[in-house]
Amino acid sequence: MESEMIKVSQKSGVNAVAGAIAGIVRQNKAVEIQVIGAGALNQAVKAVIVARGFVAPEGLDLTMTPSFSDIEINGTERTAIRLVVESK
Amino acid sequence: MESEMIKVSQKSGVNAVAGAIAGIVRQNKAVEIQVIGAGALNQAVKAVIVARGFVAPEGLDLTMTPSFSDIEINGTERTAIRLVVESK
Repeated sequence: MESEMIKVSQKSGVNAVAGAIAGIVRQNKAVEIQVIGAGALNQAVKAVIVARGFVAPEGLDLTMTPSFSDIEINGTERTAIRLVVESK
Repeated sequence: MESEMIKVSQKSGVNAVAGAIAGIVRQNKAVEIQVIGAGALNQAVKAVIVARGFVAPEGLDLTMTPSFSDIEINGTERTAIRLVVESK
């Protein structure tokens, strides 16, 4: 399945991210959310919960598949968490 | 699907929780993980990632379906996050 990537931070607005997730899922694509840190993960998971409500009337239900992802930021290796969100 | 509930806190060990998830999923049950706060959610999601590795050799792949859950702790209403983990 084709997918689009979203980076979510601790400061990301839950509703804005939820709207982005819903928009991508409606195009029959998966969404890859990348986060670093507990605060960012918290925003991302809340956004998925809100997005589930956005797309539920269309008969879509969203699940997340999590994995670790080693990424490099300014020359430093960090472990991000990647959540692949798709319709069941 | 029958399910068992696990509460995960910020102090929960990732590997211990991952082992519990794997054990329950192997019995063909879903796992409901309940967390309050970003630190606890972080431990829970890491545990699901590790559990995916534990059960992958058996051909199982795990997904999470998140939702909010209002719970009462010592007479105070708190919003928990519930992750239903099951094999695809």
